[in-house]
Amino acid sequence: MYSFKNDYAEGMHPNILNRIIETNLIQQAGYGDDEYTLRAKELIQAKIENPQAQIYFVSGGTQANLLVISSILRTHQAVIAPQTGHIFANETGAIEATGHKVIPVATTNGKLTAQDIERMAGEYGLRPHVVEPKMVYISNSTELGTIYTKEELTAISSTCKQLGLYLFIDGARLGHALTADNNDLTLKDIADLTDVFYIGATKNGGLLGEAIVFNNTELATYFDYNLKQKGALLAKGRLLGLQFETLFTDNLYFDLASHANRMATKLTEAFKAKGYHFLGDSTTNQLFPILPLALIEELNKDYDFYIWKAIDQEYAAIRLITSWATDEEMVNQFIEKIK
Amino acid sequence: MYSFKNDYAEGMHPNILNRIIETNLIQQAGYGDDEYTLRAKELIQAKIENPQAQIYFVSGGTQANLLVISSILRTHQAVIAPQTGHIFANETGAIEATGHKVIPVATTNGKLTAQDIERMAGEYGLRPHVVEPKMVYISNSTELGTIYTKEELTAISSTCKQLGLYLFIDGARLGHALTADNNDLTLKDIADLTDVFYIGATKNGGLLGEAIVFNNTELATYFDYNLKQKGALLAKGRLLGLQFETLFTDNLYFDLASHANRMATKLTEAFKAKGYHFLGDSTTNQLFPILPLALIEELNKDYDFYIWKAIDQEYAAIRLITSWATDEEMVNQFIEKIK
Amino acid sequence: MYSFKNDYAEGMHPNILNRIIETNLIQQAGYGDDEYTLRAKELIQAKIENPQAQIYFVSGGTQANLLVISSILRTHQAVIAPQTGHIFANETGAIEATGHKVIPVATTNGKLTAQDIERMAGEYGLRPHVVEPKMVYISNSTELGTIYTKEELTAISSTCKQLGLYLFIDGARLGHALTADNNDLTLKDIADLTDVFYIGATKNGGLLGEAIVFNNTELATYFDYNLKQKGALLAKGRLLGLQFETLFTDNLYFDLASHANRMATKLTEAFKAKGYHFLGDSTTNQLFPILPLALIEELNKDYDFYIWKAIDQEYAAIRLITSWATDEEMVNQFIEKIK
Amino acid sequence: MYSFKNDYAEGMHPNILNRIIETNLIQQAGYGDDEYTLRAKELIQAKIENPQAQIYFVSGGTQANLLVISSILRTHQAVIAPQTGHIFANETGAIEATGHKVIPVATTNGKLTAQDIERMAGEYGLRPHVVEPKMVYISNSTELGTIYTKEELTAISSTCKQLGLYLFIDGARLGHALTADNNDLTLKDIADLTDVFYIGATKNGGLLGEAIVFNNTELATYFDYNLKQKGALLAKGRLLGLQFETLFTDNLYFDLASHANRMATKLTEAFKAKGYHFLGDSTTNQLFPILPLALIEELNKDYDFYIWKAIDQEYAAIRLITSWATDEEMVNQFIEKIK
Repeated sequence: MYSFKNDYAEGMHPNILNRIIETNLIQQAGYGDDEYTLRAKELIQAKIENPQAQIYFVSGGTQANLLVISSILRTHQAVIAPQTGHIFANETGAIEATGHKVIPVATTNGKLTAQDIERMAGEYGLRPHVVEPKMVYISNSTELGTIYTKEELTAISSTCKQLGLYLFIDGARLGHALTADNNDLTLKDIADLTDVFYIGATKNGGLLGEAIVFNNTELATYFDYNLKQKGALLAKGRLLGLQFETLFTDNLYFDLASHANRMATKLTEAFKAKGYHFLGDSTTNQLFPILPLALIEELNKDYDFYIWKAIDQEYAAIRLITSWATDEEMVNQFIEKIK
Repeated sequence: MYSFKNDYAEGMHPNILNRIIETNLIQQAGYGDDEYTLRAKELIQAKIENPQAQIYFVSGGTQANLLVISSILRTHQAVIAPQTGHIFANETGAIEATGHKVIPVATTNGKLTAQDIERMAGEYGLRPHVVEPKMVYISNSTELGTIYTKEELTAISSTCKQLGLYLFIDGARLGHALTADNNDLTLKDIADLTDVFYIGATKNGGLLGEAIVFNNTELATYFDYNLKQKGALLAKGRLLGLQFETLFTDNLYFDLASHANRMATKLTEAFKAKGYHFLGDSTTNQLFPILPLALIEELNKDYDFYIWKAIDQEYAAIRLITSWATDEEMVNQFIEKIK
Repeated sequence: MYSFKNDYAEGMHPNILNRIIETNLIQQAGYGDDEYTLRAKELIQAKIENPQAQIYFVSGGTQANLLVISSILRTHQAVIAPQTGHIFANETGAIEATGHKVIPVATTNGKLTAQDIERMAGEYGLRPHVVEPKMVYISNSTELGTIYTKEELTAISSTCKQLGLYLFIDGARLGHALTADNNDLTLKDIADLTDVFYIGATKNGGLLGEAIVFNNTELATYFDYNLKQKGALLAKGRLLGLQFETLFTDNLYFDLASHANRMATKLTEAFKAKGYHFLGDSTTNQLFPILPLALIEELNKDYDFYIWKAIDQEYAAIRLITSWATDEEMVNQFIEKIK
Repeated sequence: MYSFKNDYAEGMHPNILNRIIETNLIQQAGYGDDEYTLRAKELIQAKIENPQAQIYFVSGGTQANLLVISSILRTHQAVIAPQTGHIFANETGAIEATGHKVIPVATTNGKLTAQDIERMAGEYGLRPHVVEPKMVYISNSTELGTIYTKEELTAISSTCKQLGLYLFIDGARLGHALTADNNDLTLKDIADLTDVFYIGATKNGGLLGEAIVFNNTELATYFDYNLKQKGALLAKGRLLGLQFETLFTDNLYFDLASHANRMATKLTEAFKAKGYHFLGDSTTNQLFPILPLALIEELNKDYDFYIWKAIDQEYAAIRLITSWATDEEMVNQFIEKIK
């Protein structure tokens, strides 16, 4: 049984493991004041060409989302998000649990547009009877595997600035977005166009960890307090630092994402060659082919994946996910099965 | 300038004022332990034929909503509501501020159906990655002036029971619903079919006040604590008790709502006679006629109301609200203007 | 049975009732945009000689406290308060329910000192492992009936400024403090020395209502949103406005408090004449005489009051409260009983 | 420079590292449904002889505390804790941020007594004006290094049962408590006497991780939801499972704690031999010797530790912490320095 169910089925990339092994018994300061964490921050600051950027490492995506949003917004402020956005759809009310409304916007492919934002801001004008939208949340890549172009993100960014909204990108799969074939954004662009974003390692080579980057450093003023208050400050912060130090050495982070995307593309092309259709038009490491139920049953004997959505009596969409650890040999075997 | 802008432009019904005058200097216990409050509870218990019902009086609708929801739900639980429901659309994130997600459902006329509920419950199954829907919130009359029939409410109630969901009715305008021409529900029905609901006085003769009625008394176990914690426990609870005591004497509550509905019906018929259309099909004290802009401008010289929604270049919908205090003479004058 | 149990046993002062009667059926804007509320604000602004002060009227003390604190503090910030302060001792965790820690300080007579504040600020330095104290909360008069002198409050105010702490006064019984025999503060002083405070009417002539005054107007930026979100915005705000308009006409607010204090002083002197001691040294409308149990039992036949604290086998302290409505005749009778 | 500053200066015990190495590329289910986590749970269930116990692994102590408390308490309920307890003193208001008051109790040595609990429960009786104490929180070992005896814990447990309070033990340093020379409690006793407790690995051999054990399984009903909502559910839960699986194999967890305690005892005896006194009477891996300032300065040249508290002009208390990783050679050198 080989799993295409998610991108966190294995442990960590061997380079990270090696760094953990070689540093294991060296004494370091706690709470992220260790040498590895400091070095990791410098590497990311260099990559986005902003040595002032404030960077914090946390354990996972939901944690990153709730920390960023709750530390920035005032009690009556809300965040605009796509209806498919992770914070609205899949985090057990994590944002609302910190007291803030998430304003959902219906989209066709998981992507918010500048027009959507303008419209929603307009709908929330009846002060003080409605929340004040103050932040926009988007994911890149999105929960449907799609990505934002530079033009789209620039438009969103300008609209946010004009309306006084903060722009926050959930980058749980940012590596996959930035290495997709149809991508024209760099990590520096992401930093330049947002107030805050994060770089996910959990789904791209790390054991656990997201690097939250505040380009708008004023928003980070109190972040350390919130990190502790929400139980996110690790005593052995070194574990997070070591991972990002390694991932941002020798382009590893992007190489790993490229591999995942390449595996996904192979699968996508194989399905296309057989004439199958897809839910959405993902170009990253998630794909949603629509298959005959009999084929799904057959594939399920050897491969683990989610049956995503019933289409009709004969067809359903499944979700396949590839990762830095996906074995190309298994992909080839899977493709043989389809043929 | 006469106002049709809302149903809280005047003070209180004279009968209430008289009770306040005659009791003003009588010493009473604080915090709702006064004689008037106890008597008001008995009158409502008698009306719904449940002497065990737990009843609490609070100052307003948003307060009632946040108190009921936050005292019943556990941290991870959510409430399903129509997208137009007051808790989703118009309360500045009051429910989310207590930590709970509101799951919005699109509707055509502000009314949720049993099918909607079943569908939404089904969509929230991926424990623990999504909230647990545990309550259904509806308003009667709705924010669009429509009402639920006995058949509809019975279906909703059964579905809730079957799915383990609590049913909560926002009755800020419950009087208007229960006295509408097309209504077939009684106050007792409302109690029998829900776990908790409230009876609004602010918009129907009172100065301020909603009576929260727990028919499912287990849900009221800790309500008194929450009332105090959220700043809703009035030192001089007598003010709330006196109002409901008076409103539930001699059918006053329903007579007042009937008057409001009758005034609205007169206006509705006048618009219909002139061939105008409406947003929605309200049968209670709110109406949303679609009028030529020129007529709106003309009416606005003498009458105050909300311009609700632009329709096209020539038309817009306005909102007119009548109340227990609406002067029939002013309604007649207004109708003359339309003609 | 005559009650000395609290200062909210009666309704409202007749002047307020008269204003309610004469304005009852006049149409007014909702949500505090009525004429009476605007006039009440002007009267208070004039009294504190600050026409820029932002003023909001709410229903009660706990509500005022939670609104002010939750709208000003950021998630990780805390408020320093005397251990006997209402927010720590008697509000069912209302402040904590909005997410903020209350740091309690032991005091001898319910009063915080500048030194206490300095010490507590010093104890909370281990960022980010402890909350950031950002506000100081005190009550005047205190929960024990004591008051702050101008010298004491000035020292507290300077210390707060120096340490970057906001100063907030709970004035549920501010009238009684400012009219006490040993008081040397004016309402203007209170405004000048604090960032925000409130003037209580519930316990001094009103039916319900506290006027929150932001002298530091920047802190009021988002207050209107919070007011709505926490369920505190009354549809018929006129009810609050009318009361303060009346209380701040012809010095009524202070005259009423003076009466309450005078009644308390008479009682205090009568107890002192008989050689009884007191818990604390209240000079306002609460007194805590320590009496023989037999006398307490005897008094309890005709008068209602709290038995506050057991002292020993033979003695207990009781709490007596007087108000604007206290009948001097009843006070005289009570004094006869002691003799 | 050798650090005695805390017990999280190194990485993880080599046995854990080896398990991570050997399992790194094996595909496993996410979110704690991996084989290692299941096995770790069984090992702990066996140790406490309760195969029904519900066990969850989380990243750290503050996270464990806020998750347990917020998932069990209702909105108006509070937790009683020693004033020195981690949740009151050192977690940036983490508990209050979930809406709950922590009721602090002054203690002499960081330990709560059954009498303290009874007294505090008695002080919170004025329903609904005060919170309802519903849980007792204690740490073993305490923040001052002291431990509870079986007699003390049994008395606390009975008192809690009698008063309807849940008993929760913070076991961030539970290993050190259970292996102290003066300890007479077993892990099974801890489970039997509490409703919920946790076993800390972060400070005893692990990289990160606390095992939360619900002996009262009813309290765990919704814990999984809360885990996700608060951002504590790791995608690669295997990392936590692997650690506890290893620590609970061959008594490793207790052996590591024993080593730490033994190192601390050596230090303690060396100080005692020189006639120095201590703050408190720790028998675990934290010690607080009171030393001449000159000696402190001298020691600080080669060793890192906290200067805990000024005593007078000539003396201060320092805090030394030992751990599973403390090098006995360094302890010997340190002792030489004292001599």
